[in-house]
Amino acid sequence: MSLDGFVAGPDDGADAPMGVGGFRLVDWLDLRHEPGAHGPVYAESLATRAVIAGRRTYELAGRGQRDHHDGVPVFVLTHDVPEDPPPGSVRYVTGARGCARQARERGRGRGRDGARGAGAAQALLRAGELDELELHVVPVLLGHGRRLFDHLPAETVELELVRCLSTPEVADPAQRAAHLRYRVRRT
Amino acid sequence: MSLDGFVAGPDDGADAPMGVGGFRLVDWLDLRHEPGAHGPVYAESLATRAVIAGRRTYELAGRGQRDHHDGVPVFVLTHDVPEDPPPGSVRYVTGARGCARQARERGRGRGRDGARGAGAAQALLRAGELDELELHVVPVLLGHGRRLFDHLPAETVELELVRCLSTPEVADPAQRAAHLRYRVRRT
Repeated sequence: MSLDGFVAGPDDGADAPMGVGGFRLVDWLDLRHEPGAHGPVYAESLATRAVIAGRRTYELAGRGQRDHHDGVPVFVLTHDVPEDPPPGSVRYVTGARGCARQARERGRGRGRDGARGAGAAQALLRAGELDELELHVVPVLLGHGRRLFDHLPAETVELELVRCLSTPEVADPAQRAAHLRYRVRRT
Repeated sequence: MSLDGFVAGPDDGADAPMGVGGFRLVDWLDLRHEPGAHGPVYAESLATRAVIAGRRTYELAGRGQRDHHDGVPVFVLTHDVPEDPPPGSVRYVTGARGCARQARERGRGRGRDGARGAGAAQALLRAGELDELELHVVPVLLGHGRRLFDHLPAETVELELVRCLSTPEVADPAQRAAHLRYRVRRT
């Protein structure tokens, strides 16, 4: 996420999956083999027992052609289930609550499930099914694009900061993302 | 700032200077005498040689009646200069660039100037006069209110993360703000 809250630039689509200027938000991944927190945080993000992705993120990622998730179940949250069967370990699901239930059942006892993309995160937040948020805050203001926190009800959601990792080892201070993890407090 | 980017709740006004629910964003100040970074960070925020405030922030703060700035010059950025003279060390100024110049001249060699409020920060950012951003990211989603990063041009502003202080000493994880400092990179 950019410091001003965008997870993609404007006009994201097949030709520009991160939107105009949006690849700036994933520059830090290029430093995942350098000392510091970027590498472990990236490894954690891959080590999920299941993945929930919004339909848009899934399509922009090439329908799993660029899957980095080692064959774990991928649940694609969609309003309209496509007619052709999904590839590999992908399942189409409608409804965030059922999606979260299926992901938990499939991966029971094997760690965390991960949500990918703003749409999935928003749907799971709205459904009260998001336990944690892990944000990689990149030192840039994009000024426009797709907001992570959007299409949410106008109400307070209390969080708890459970981890805050900065990356002072990174030589270029423009590549020092802050990795913030929050627990969603149940009321 | 809330994690979703709001610096006040909705409907801020004389009766609710932080907007509905917005005082949640300053809860951490109550812990400024506890161990951890909250106290030093708060002390730094007061130790500015001059303060630039937006007109709205100034009015909501009672026109300096609740000034905590020990008599340093306060420059109030406004479109319409009021007819009655300003109290004490307050000056009304129009135009962010001239405002920044005056603040720098008045306080030369005595440390930092501080901007207060979203309006002042936005005006100084737009004018290219903001050197650093210090954000106190509070673990809450407000869902609506006044955004810090708003009314800005649709263009990328590169930043550098120069400090990232979390507050693991704070017993309640809902009060663990992350204090993030960024330098604005000149292009």
